[in-house]
Amino acid sequence: MKEFELIARLTRDLPPHPAVVAGPGDDCALVDLGIPGQLAVLKTDATVEGIHFTPDAPAEQVGHKAIARVLSDFAAAAATPCAALVTLGLPSACDTDRVESLYRGLRATADRWQVAIVGGETTTSPDRILLSVSGLGTVARDRVVRRRGALPGDAIFVTGELGGSLEGRHLAFEPRLTEARWLAEHCLPHAMIDLSDGLGGDLRHLLHASGVGAELLQRSIPISRDARIRARRGDAAKPPLLAALADGEDFELLFTVASRDAVPLLDAWRARFPGTRLTCVGRITSEPGLRLNDGRHSREWSAPGYTHFA
Amino acid sequence: MKEFELIARLTRDLPPHPAVVAGPGDDCALVDLGIPGQLAVLKTDATVEGIHFTPDAPAEQVGHKAIARVLSDFAAAAATPCAALVTLGLPSACDTDRVESLYRGLRATADRWQVAIVGGETTTSPDRILLSVSGLGTVARDRVVRRRGALPGDAIFVTGELGGSLEGRHLAFEPRLTEARWLAEHCLPHAMIDLSDGLGGDLRHLLHASGVGAELLQRSIPISRDARIRARRGDAAKPPLLAALADGEDFELLFTVASRDAVPLLDAWRARFPGTRLTCVGRITSEPGLRLNDGRHSREWSAPGYTHFA
Repeated sequence: MKEFELIARLTRDLPPHPAVVAGPGDDCALVDLGIPGQLAVLKTDATVEGIHFTPDAPAEQVGHKAIARVLSDFAAAAATPCAALVTLGLPSACDTDRVESLYRGLRATADRWQVAIVGGETTTSPDRILLSVSGLGTVARDRVVRRRGALPGDAIFVTGELGGSLEGRHLAFEPRLTEARWLAEHCLPHAMIDLSDGLGGDLRHLLHASGVGAELLQRSIPISRDARIRARRGDAAKPPLLAALADGEDFELLFTVASRDAVPLLDAWRARFPGTRLTCVGRITSEPGLRLNDGRHSREWSAPGYTHFA
Repeated sequence: MKEFELIARLTRDLPPHPAVVAGPGDDCALVDLGIPGQLAVLKTDATVEGIHFTPDAPAEQVGHKAIARVLSDFAAAAATPCAALVTLGLPSACDTDRVESLYRGLRATADRWQVAIVGGETTTSPDRILLSVSGLGTVARDRVVRRRGALPGDAIFVTGELGGSLEGRHLAFEPRLTEARWLAEHCLPHAMIDLSDGLGGDLRHLLHASGVGAELLQRSIPISRDARIRARRGDAAKPPLLAALADGEDFELLFTVASRDAVPLLDAWRARFPGTRLTCVGRITSEPGLRLNDGRHSREWSAPGYTHFA
């Protein structure tokens, strides 16, 4: 059973709760705690040795990744994180220097984003290192962006370049918090998600939540240099386009805006974030499904995104 | 390095954050999100196969324990939990029925305490099952109870009976949320903690946070039937008193109140919770350290509590 099926099966029939605005199925949970004009935002993510990083990965980068993954989900909700809890699961023989390096990486990223580490625990994880990070933050009620909300005709945008993150970007990316908050202020995307499971996989989640379909323009997909390098080296079976569509852990933003807002948005983005690409990669359709247009033909795209739990 | 030393080392020099009222070192983190009259309360706990439960433990009880441990920390802060995130780390070969049973146990306890499961994730934990639960809730600013605050002369109370929780109670306990909220309304304890590391260990945490010492009256310590059974069976090296002082996972409340409030509190408690013992086990002293009085002599008590990470 794949991760998403299992989550869906486990969380079906969850009883409605008056304080819960968004529960399972969005990047972050949104809870109404009675903050005037704001919602509380909650998200957790586990980072496991052998799954999300190899034993030889630099410990500071692993610590960075463990919290940056959570902050990337806050970005997807255009939310502002303020506090985090950290659970470290450590083998008993774990080298203290390595643990301190993990924590140093975590703290540096937390500090950079003004996120206070407010607690957590250290527990034994006999076989491998595990970091579970939970974040708490807020978002203005009238500036929340969710996976649902994409409308037929919307332009689909992605930030940055996609594919090949295993070359190193998956350990070193910065969460798009600043960009996301700017987007929410500037044009309030109809729907947004962060790319952890690949453009193909995460776009499907957004489409499913919004009850729409999409057509991607193959030539417009921003393929990263890393994806091209990997393909050339021959150590990856995937051609670069497939890597851009199906590799995981890009941690870029995928969002939709009304088509009339597309060009002004691109202009304003370039002025505000000149160092970061923003690309229109396609449009939302009323017909369900995900199609890929190569300039001549449009065909159904059915290859899955990256799946952690297979 | 023991768990507490490591946490202290990792979290030292955390920069102050204007929204953080209580960070590492308390049962829960307290964050000011601007809720009128309230603080947000945040807590995470990981429950790991082979550490917190054996592979043959009934899955529903494991699910219950994973969330009840977090709710017990909310009880220690006299807080009200409202939402939880659940991370399930599962071996790929994990039986789906077992996963559903885990989740059923989690959900039943969440539902019973009106806690909404608002998200989480399933990830691969190749070697053993792991459940990481993060809880979010609230507490009235003027009713917060923390580890710090115990004053010389205070009476020290514990709920329930202590020791021997491995007989089964560690999988089946109910968090003392109702009792804690009643206490906060009725007499506002000066300091409170939940007993996860044993009376000796957790009282030390409370004393350390409060900058005081304590003397326990040996004869008054409420020893559980389980602790006596285990001692009689000879399969535990510990005599019952030592089990009550040093066994982990009682998940009872330990708190202090002004000595003049002790007798009225006991009377009111018996009327409100006739099925649950409340016992005065000693008093707070201005001299630091923890002493045990056997009726004739008072001696320093230095045996450690239960340590998860050894």
